[in-house]
Amino acid sequence: MDISDWRRQIDELDRQLVELISKRAQAAHEIGRLKRAARMPIYEPDRERTVFEKVRGVNPGPLSDVDLLRIYERIIDVMRKIQKEEIAPSLAQELGNTELDSEVND
Amino acid sequence: MDISDWRRQIDELDRQLVELISKRAQAAHEIGRLKRAARMPIYEPDRERTVFEKVRGVNPGPLSDVDLLRIYERIIDVMRKIQKEEIAPSLAQELGNTELDSEVND
Repeated sequence: MDISDWRRQIDELDRQLVELISKRAQAAHEIGRLKRAARMPIYEPDRERTVFEKVRGVNPGPLSDVDLLRIYERIIDVMRKIQKEEIAPSLAQELGNTELDSEVND
Repeated sequence: MDISDWRRQIDELDRQLVELISKRAQAAHEIGRLKRAARMPIYEPDRERTVFEKVRGVNPGPLSDVDLLRIYERIIDVMRKIQKEEIAPSLAQELGNTELDSEVND
């Protein structure tokens, strides 16, 4: 395979990656909606740790765990933002819009 | 679906995401190897722009293009690091180990 072959493969992988990332975002959005509806505790510190552990556990290489987790940190960061946007409107009313920033994860 | 159902779905999506990211890393690694073998120009500024354009073009939502590209910036950043590690040993000899940092992309 030459460079253009590999790039075509990368383009196809990117198409699939965007699809999966979008499905993950949809699931995070739904979780945010359910938390709001059930007035459940928002802050669940173990969940993010669990996600990172699972990701590390299925890493086949060639990326190091550190490099893979750098990518995942950004994914989680963006997903957290989605949930904040989902949860913020109703909670902001109740809490006077304080202390939401560090208390939302998936 | 309740929250634990959505989380099971996220865990499965993550398993697939790690697989695709790893395949993408392997392809970037191969491109780095081919560039080195063929002594081709390393710096190809249009390629990264093309990747971002393609990603934006297939974004189905719910993420905004900005959020999706934030994730992709990190993916590209990690892939660039892999190619640098691949290319650096031989080029470093030729170039005296200067100016490699900003001149490698996929």
